[in-house]
Amino acid sequence: MTAGTFLFDKVAFIGIGLIGSSLVRLIRREGLAREIAIATRSPATLAKAEVLGLGDSYTLDAAEAACDADLVMICTPLGAYEAVAKAIAPALKDGAIVSDVGSVKACALRDFASNLPAGVHLVPGHPIAGTEHSGPEAGFAELFNGHWCILTPEKNTDAVAVDKVAELWKRAGMKIEIMDAAHHDRVLAITSHLPHLIAYTIVGTATDLEEHLKKEVIEFSAGGFRDFTRIAASDPVMWRDIFLKNKDAVLDILGRFSEDLTALQRAIRRDEAQTLEGAFTRARAIRKGVIEAKQERIDGKAD
Amino acid sequence: MTAGTFLFDKVAFIGIGLIGSSLVRLIRREGLAREIAIATRSPATLAKAEVLGLGDSYTLDAAEAACDADLVMICTPLGAYEAVAKAIAPALKDGAIVSDVGSVKACALRDFASNLPAGVHLVPGHPIAGTEHSGPEAGFAELFNGHWCILTPEKNTDAVAVDKVAELWKRAGMKIEIMDAAHHDRVLAITSHLPHLIAYTIVGTATDLEEHLKKEVIEFSAGGFRDFTRIAASDPVMWRDIFLKNKDAVLDILGRFSEDLTALQRAIRRDEAQTLEGAFTRARAIRKGVIEAKQERIDGKAD
Repeated sequence: MTAGTFLFDKVAFIGIGLIGSSLVRLIRREGLAREIAIATRSPATLAKAEVLGLGDSYTLDAAEAACDADLVMICTPLGAYEAVAKAIAPALKDGAIVSDVGSVKACALRDFASNLPAGVHLVPGHPIAGTEHSGPEAGFAELFNGHWCILTPEKNTDAVAVDKVAELWKRAGMKIEIMDAAHHDRVLAITSHLPHLIAYTIVGTATDLEEHLKKEVIEFSAGGFRDFTRIAASDPVMWRDIFLKNKDAVLDILGRFSEDLTALQRAIRRDEAQTLEGAFTRARAIRKGVIEAKQERIDGKAD
Repeated sequence: MTAGTFLFDKVAFIGIGLIGSSLVRLIRREGLAREIAIATRSPATLAKAEVLGLGDSYTLDAAEAACDADLVMICTPLGAYEAVAKAIAPALKDGAIVSDVGSVKACALRDFASNLPAGVHLVPGHPIAGTEHSGPEAGFAELFNGHWCILTPEKNTDAVAVDKVAELWKRAGMKIEIMDAAHHDRVLAITSHLPHLIAYTIVGTATDLEEHLKKEVIEFSAGGFRDFTRIAASDPVMWRDIFLKNKDAVLDILGRFSEDLTALQRAIRRDEAQTLEGAFTRARAIRKGVIEAKQERIDGKAD
C-alpha cells in the first residue's frame, strides 16, 4: 500500500490494552496509517508496547501523542475518559476525529462533548469483541473479524468522519451498526453487562465457600461454572467503570433479573414443576434466535 | 474382543437420551457387553433409537429390558426414578447392579433403596459431561472422554459392583471420584445447578423485553449473553427435575448468591468503585484455579 492510500496519516492511541493493541496490529498489518503514536498512563504498559514494537512513538503524555493526529483512539477504561479528554483538548488539531472502544457510549459522548473543542469530530465506537485476557501482549489483529462494531455519533456529526471510522473497523472485518448511544447502553446492559455482573457474583460466591468445598468446585467446574469463571476473568478496572458508567441501565435490567430469579426460586421451594418447565422451555427459543443470527462462536475462542 | 472379556453380559438402558445413547455407543464401540436392551417411555424416542441401531432389543416396558440384566443403567429424568424402580423391581435378578447418570444423587439413592430388592447392588453415578443438545440422535461415544464421573454408593455397597461401574466409565475415558451423595449434591449445586438456573433466568428476562430490543439482544449477543443462551438450551424436563430433587442445596446456594448480587447492586448504586474492583479482582483467582485444574475446555465443545 502506498502512502497515498493511508486511511489516516497519524493515529494516536491513548491506552494500549487488549483492544487497543489488537487494533494497532490490524492497522499495521493493513497499512492503514502512516504513523502510530502510543500513549498510556502506566510506564510498565508503555514499556511492553515498545518491546512489542506496536507503534512509531511512545509517550506517557496523552497530549503529545494526540498532537497533529487525524484520529485519536481512546482505549482506556471509561473512568479515565474525562481526564484524557481534558489532557488532549489543547493538542488536538482542527478536524481531528476522536473515537473510542468503550462499552458504554452515552457517558463517552458526554465526557468528550463537554471537554473537547468544537472543531473536533466525535465518533464513539464499540467493537463487540474481546477475550478474558488483558494488556498489550494479549492483542491480535484477528480479534475483531466477523463481529459487530456499534458507532454512536450524534445526528449532526460530520458524515465523512463517521465513514472513516466505519471504514477502519470494516478493514478489521467488522460489521457496522449506527445506533443512538443511550439505546446502545440499554442493549449492552443485558447482552454483556448483566452477564458479567452475574458471572463475577457467582464466582465470588464460590470464593467464599469453605476451603474443601471450594477445591471441589474448581475440580468439577465442567457443568456450567467454568463458563462463568472465564467471563469473570475479564479486567476488573474496565468492568468497575462499565458498571458505574452504565448504572441506570444496569440497575434496571438487574431489577428485572432479580424479580425473575425470585419467581423461579419460589417455584422451586413450592415444587411448581410446570412453572419451571415452562420457563426453561421458553428460554430455548432465544437460543434458536442466537444460532440463526450466527452469533454462536464456532471456534471455541472467546470473543 | 472375545465374549469372555465382556464387562457385562446384558446391560439394560432405561431412557436413551443424550447421555444414555452416548454410553450405548461407547459400550458397542469398546465391546463391553454381549447384549444391550433399550427401554424408554416414549414410542417416538424408542423408534429413533431403533433407527440408529443403538441396541439389540427395544421395548416400552422397563421390566422387560431389565429382566436378566447384569447392569441396569437408568438414564431418565430424575422425576421418573421412583416409577422406574417400582417397575423394574420384580424383574431384577439377584446380584444385578442398578446405576444411573442423574445430576442429583441423594434422591437417586433414596428412590432406589426404598423400591428395589435387597439383593441388588446400588451404584448411583454422575458422569459430568453433556452438551446443550438432547435426544438419542445427539449422543456420541467420545462425550465422556477426559471428564469426571462421580460415583456415590453407600459405604456398605459391594466393592466388586462399584469397581465394575467404575471400570465402565474408565473405558469411556473418565476420571472416577467416589463421594458421599449429599456432598455431591452440594458441590454440583454451585458448579452446575445454580449456573443453569441463572442462565435460564437471564435468557427469560431477555425474552420478556420489548420486541425491538429483544431482536438487538440476539444480534449483539457476543458480549457474554450468548454463553448463557447455550447453557439455557439444555433439556427443560431434565432441569426441572434437578431443581426439584436438589431443592435444599440449590436454595441454600441461591440464597448466598442473591445476597452477594444485592451487595454488588448496592455498590453500583452508591458508586463504590473500590468494592466493585475488589470483588472483580478476587473472582480472577478462581479462574486461575480452574485453568490449573485443567478443567478448561480447549476445543470449544460444550461438555
